[in-house]
Amino acid sequence: MKTLKDTGEFSTIERLRSLLPAGEDKSPGDDCAVVQTTDNTSFDWLLTSDPVIEGIHFDSSTDPLSIGYKAIGRALSDLAAMGGEPYWALINIVAPSETDVSRLEEIYKGATSIAAKFDLAIVGGDISMGKTLELHVFAAGRVPADCAVYRKGAEPGNIIYVTGSLGGSFKRKHLSFQPRVTEGIWLRSESWPTSMIDISDGLASDLRHIISPTETGAELDIAKIPISPEALSMKDNISALNHALCDGEDFELLFTIPASKTELFESSWKDTFDLACTAIGRITDKKDEIEMADKNGKHTILKNKGYEHFISNIA
Amino acid sequence: MKTLKDTGEFSTIERLRSLLPAGEDKSPGDDCAVVQTTDNTSFDWLLTSDPVIEGIHFDSSTDPLSIGYKAIGRALSDLAAMGGEPYWALINIVAPSETDVSRLEEIYKGATSIAAKFDLAIVGGDISMGKTLELHVFAAGRVPADCAVYRKGAEPGNIIYVTGSLGGSFKRKHLSFQPRVTEGIWLRSESWPTSMIDISDGLASDLRHIISPTETGAELDIAKIPISPEALSMKDNISALNHALCDGEDFELLFTIPASKTELFESSWKDTFDLACTAIGRITDKKDEIEMADKNGKHTILKNKGYEHFISNIA
Repeated sequence: MKTLKDTGEFSTIERLRSLLPAGEDKSPGDDCAVVQTTDNTSFDWLLTSDPVIEGIHFDSSTDPLSIGYKAIGRALSDLAAMGGEPYWALINIVAPSETDVSRLEEIYKGATSIAAKFDLAIVGGDISMGKTLELHVFAAGRVPADCAVYRKGAEPGNIIYVTGSLGGSFKRKHLSFQPRVTEGIWLRSESWPTSMIDISDGLASDLRHIISPTETGAELDIAKIPISPEALSMKDNISALNHALCDGEDFELLFTIPASKTELFESSWKDTFDLACTAIGRITDKKDEIEMADKNGKHTILKNKGYEHFISNIA
Repeated sequence: MKTLKDTGEFSTIERLRSLLPAGEDKSPGDDCAVVQTTDNTSFDWLLTSDPVIEGIHFDSSTDPLSIGYKAIGRALSDLAAMGGEPYWALINIVAPSETDVSRLEEIYKGATSIAAKFDLAIVGGDISMGKTLELHVFAAGRVPADCAVYRKGAEPGNIIYVTGSLGGSFKRKHLSFQPRVTEGIWLRSESWPTSMIDISDGLASDLRHIISPTETGAELDIAKIPISPEALSMKDNISALNHALCDGEDFELLFTIPASKTELFESSWKDTFDLACTAIGRITDKKDEIEMADKNGKHTILKNKGYEHFISNIA
């Protein structure tokens, strides 16, 4: 008998996904399902679902506005990662029966505030009693047909970029991050990225989702990884670099651009956004290998898989 | 301070709904949200979300195939209640870390089996750790624009119909019901009903959702209410009629038809379906009043509101 704890979140999702009929979703396992109706092939719909659970994604002291903000923000980040325009969302709430209704109202206010900012309409949901406060957000977005940016598509030689800075998000950013919706739509509409994902589980972990589909590898320049001020000021036994590599919930975009286009891309980005966007390395042909290159050109293999739920002992 | 237990499920949802921006959903509070894109006004999308939670909707001894079946069946029933054609679904699972992965696989098999039957494609979802086994299903369906059947629309004189038979579903039917998708699509496409809902909280309770929007009332003929064999064979202190009125999770369709059309409607139904469809009463102009008429024409007012989560003491 194998339990969730033994198998881990990713593998269990993989096993369950294999039970679904093939063919409907254009990119199973991506940030969103990508589906189309037969009578309107001009667009692909992006569908995503995200749980936000007390004790995992927030704690009992978290202010309710931030809980609602985070729940919608995660779904928006999934849409952003494929270049999608947000359309509609539903929220299922599970709450202990003794929950103050005004707390739920504050959660809703947090949710509607961020939804409005990105033109996502919250159009319904459900509420039911349970032991733990949970929000389950379902969101639908859209892209012109066959324009979604997938996790797959990175080729050796492509340059790896990341928006913003990374690490230590659990201090504050995981409750107040800006989902990169505008940036994701721009990247998709300008056809820059060959692959894209949002960083929810940590750079080291999510980069594996980029290299795995095309059986490639990656080489990261240690000095170039944009480490957040939070990670730099962390006073624990983990280096700031490791925080940037392995902390989850940065909700920045990680994507790849053909090397021939990087100059034009970087100037276009700077003309369009104030947000930092940093080239942190390149895709290699060394299957499944993430190498870290230091200033002196010394390479080490990255073993750390980043944060994954359920599995408590990660190498 | 008011808690969920004080306020109850319905009122809390109402309070939260009032915080959402108006205008996007064509019928807030209905079985599904009804939304449209500005560039394709030929169709309305129906969006619904349903939680299925251990200890509320099933118990620890429930076989996993039935849990998956029920979760998808409930969402299909919501689409059916508005006449929608099923399109896509996502499933969020919350499970204790010690859950056997094969149990989750069985849940998925139950879900995919009923989804396939009604052309609903399960295209993704998420899994996370929690104290209680839960499924949150999000489903999208579609109707031609402005053709969805709403809860609102019943007029005095309309005849009230219900499919199948009612009561005692917790014995078995709540895990094996047939969502009335085919019937709902037919009713909508033939433009029969003036209003419709699926019976999830019990006839007495769900009928109130039909009469409330148009400030009407209802008169039910006690002798005509189709009581299920399960309700008739129940050996408890509650009458079979009360089981039929108040038990939840029958997932039959409850709808209203103009009196002038009932003869044609009934013969069309019989030509199309083997399933029973029974006229059980009529809409009146007595606002919010549900009257029960016995064989001798004696009327009593129905006070029972049917099953509602959170509120343990119902009048």
